[in-house]
Amino acid sequence: MAPDDTGAAEVLSRAGAADATDPLSAYRDRFVPLPDGVIYLDGNSLGRPLRRLPELLGRVIEEEWGGGLIRSWDHWELLASEVGDELGATLLGARPGEVTVSDSTTVNLYKLAMAAIGARPGRDVVLIDSDSFPTDRYVLDGIAERHGLQVREVASHLDEGFDVEAVEASLDERVGLVCLSHVGYRSAARADMAPINRAIHSSGALVLWDLCHSVGAVPVDLTGTGCDLAVGCTYKYLNAGPGAPAFLYVRREHQAQLRPPIWGWFGAADQFEMGASYEPRAGIGRFQAGTPPILGILSVREGVRLLAEAGGPSGLYPKAVALTAFGLELADRWLVPIGFRVASPRRPDRRGAHLTLEHARARQLCQLLARAGVLTDFRTPDRIRLGMAPITTTFTDVARAILRLAELAVP
Amino acid sequence: MAPDDTGAAEVLSRAGAADATDPLSAYRDRFVPLPDGVIYLDGNSLGRPLRRLPELLGRVIEEEWGGGLIRSWDHWELLASEVGDELGATLLGARPGEVTVSDSTTVNLYKLAMAAIGARPGRDVVLIDSDSFPTDRYVLDGIAERHGLQVREVASHLDEGFDVEAVEASLDERVGLVCLSHVGYRSAARADMAPINRAIHSSGALVLWDLCHSVGAVPVDLTGTGCDLAVGCTYKYLNAGPGAPAFLYVRREHQAQLRPPIWGWFGAADQFEMGASYEPRAGIGRFQAGTPPILGILSVREGVRLLAEAGGPSGLYPKAVALTAFGLELADRWLVPIGFRVASPRRPDRRGAHLTLEHARARQLCQLLARAGVLTDFRTPDRIRLGMAPITTTFTDVARAILRLAELAVP
Repeated sequence: MAPDDTGAAEVLSRAGAADATDPLSAYRDRFVPLPDGVIYLDGNSLGRPLRRLPELLGRVIEEEWGGGLIRSWDHWELLASEVGDELGATLLGARPGEVTVSDSTTVNLYKLAMAAIGARPGRDVVLIDSDSFPTDRYVLDGIAERHGLQVREVASHLDEGFDVEAVEASLDERVGLVCLSHVGYRSAARADMAPINRAIHSSGALVLWDLCHSVGAVPVDLTGTGCDLAVGCTYKYLNAGPGAPAFLYVRREHQAQLRPPIWGWFGAADQFEMGASYEPRAGIGRFQAGTPPILGILSVREGVRLLAEAGGPSGLYPKAVALTAFGLELADRWLVPIGFRVASPRRPDRRGAHLTLEHARARQLCQLLARAGVLTDFRTPDRIRLGMAPITTTFTDVARAILRLAELAVP
Repeated sequence: MAPDDTGAAEVLSRAGAADATDPLSAYRDRFVPLPDGVIYLDGNSLGRPLRRLPELLGRVIEEEWGGGLIRSWDHWELLASEVGDELGATLLGARPGEVTVSDSTTVNLYKLAMAAIGARPGRDVVLIDSDSFPTDRYVLDGIAERHGLQVREVASHLDEGFDVEAVEASLDERVGLVCLSHVGYRSAARADMAPINRAIHSSGALVLWDLCHSVGAVPVDLTGTGCDLAVGCTYKYLNAGPGAPAFLYVRREHQAQLRPPIWGWFGAADQFEMGASYEPRAGIGRFQAGTPPILGILSVREGVRLLAEAGGPSGLYPKAVALTAFGLELADRWLVPIGFRVASPRRPDRRGAHLTLEHARARQLCQLLARAGVLTDFRTPDRIRLGMAPITTTFTDVARAILRLAELAVP
């Protein structure tokens, strides 16, 4: 049933009340304001800039770079690992020395996948979940083509993702590495890491998690759930900017055994001695390659610190659950009756912070929404993603977006 | 002979006169001013920030990222290749569609070396000049270890670098790739690309040039000299900032044959269709991997545009020659008599824009210079590099630095 005026008013009033008591509401002022009339439900694709970032980067440019000049490398040198530690402690449940900020998610995935494959000689199969982000699949296919490996899929349910049984069904003694998305980029399905990691370890393989759609939105406990390797980006829920450097995680116990494929001077021990032969650094630093992007890493630090101030996952996750539950309720009420299908898990503990709706005219509806100022994401073949970054999204945003979508889609 | 007051005064007066007629002098005001008392001869390690960069990045953060939000990807998507084209046309003698800005030099070197090796199956030797930058050697050693190749050296003279005869002496039918530095990071020796490229091509190998220490300082003609592949960084003479994204060049005629090793979504055709299998983009874009760092690429664009405004290599190179010749003259007069050795080529057409001096106490002298506000670079085992970025360095800087070095080193 399409929303009538009374129904809409009642929902908007409830949304307003939820916003008024939202403990995160004050953080919205820390971001560059949205343009008038824009509702932004795409923070899971590109997060929003912190208001203080221009001034902060300006000061770094003028003082650290322009004033300190080459001398600033004395404190920049370890910045990637320092910010990695902050990120790891705040949002990933990692221990010190397990996370660094570097390169892009794609390059980090390549580095860790190559290292893992090298650490499991004789195992010639790599597993990936069938609904993983394209770049993950591309990276593994590229490695497989070059190195004579085979990529096999863990069957992923369109809406619900994969569970431990699905992973187990694909595991055998040929599998050396399993690469999985913690939260699916299309469905928002969230995997249950601990039992999946146990199953993978029982078969002797290593696991590499892609955290792009979970970090900063849902709890991640890399240590407690026994993860081996992980990568993720910082330009979604971490708000570090378009193409900001990504991060990688290597469990402490594995670091000495894993050889990075790209041997760069920032991964070398005694790098400024510039010796003739490469000796990798002792810890996570060996997974650095080239010169780290300082301004980008500082933007990551700002994003991480803001989320830390907001309470980290324990501050953010309850709101992610509440926003997506609210969105689900409204979708069921106003969208499902007019031809939409909810394509995200209904159980909050299996969901990330976005909600996906399937509709035959999804691509067109997404464009019409954008013209109306409601920015969402289209994902092939027929899905609209409503991203609900907990730090910036209001309940009113969700209600207005779904009301607008119902208006646009009415048959 | 140590500089007496009269000699010093005469030289400083000549330097002042040269600065007064320097056609590039106005460009110094375009940079964030140096701290009081600092002489900066390390722009070949980290260039200086443009004064307008804070405001420019601030505007991009607020308007394009904060205001345009995800919609800005419509024009950011091809930014890396657009800026690559500007860089290529202005400073590299490249044709449109041959250069892109991405990743770090290390990662780009890895991508191109792996692609080149893949294009020369059966050839199991990679050559590198023996005085190349450590990361270049590390990258090739890493590839060799993993892929059962052998890295051999082109014998590079300590001061003069390598010539075509040295390269020819190392070439045989086993060599698939030759990786060379255009300007040596220690000696400043500059290679003569055209005959070297011809020799390499005669033997059936591909050549990959590292341009880190030449781009923005000396002329580079990738098309005219017949280069196959090149990489370089933007944080030295291009002034794009610490860890700013690097660039890569692939000659148009080779692009379709070369397969990048890291298959990422930004290198895929129809990337936003997110198809199940990777199909590389048609042109240089296939050598992109992950999401490009937009703020970094815009900083590269500013650096390139400033050098373009200053006349590109025809504006910059004559001053590089004059500065290094002046430095050489003063070194011969005041430093050689007290125990220094000039460790850079004396012929200007074989030299980059820095000058290297060898001294038994080089490490300590470099530190003493820094304490006196003269920032240079120490390079193992016993060399001091005086970087003379033509856009920002004055003749007075060079004279004062060498006078100070003479004072500090007097036996």
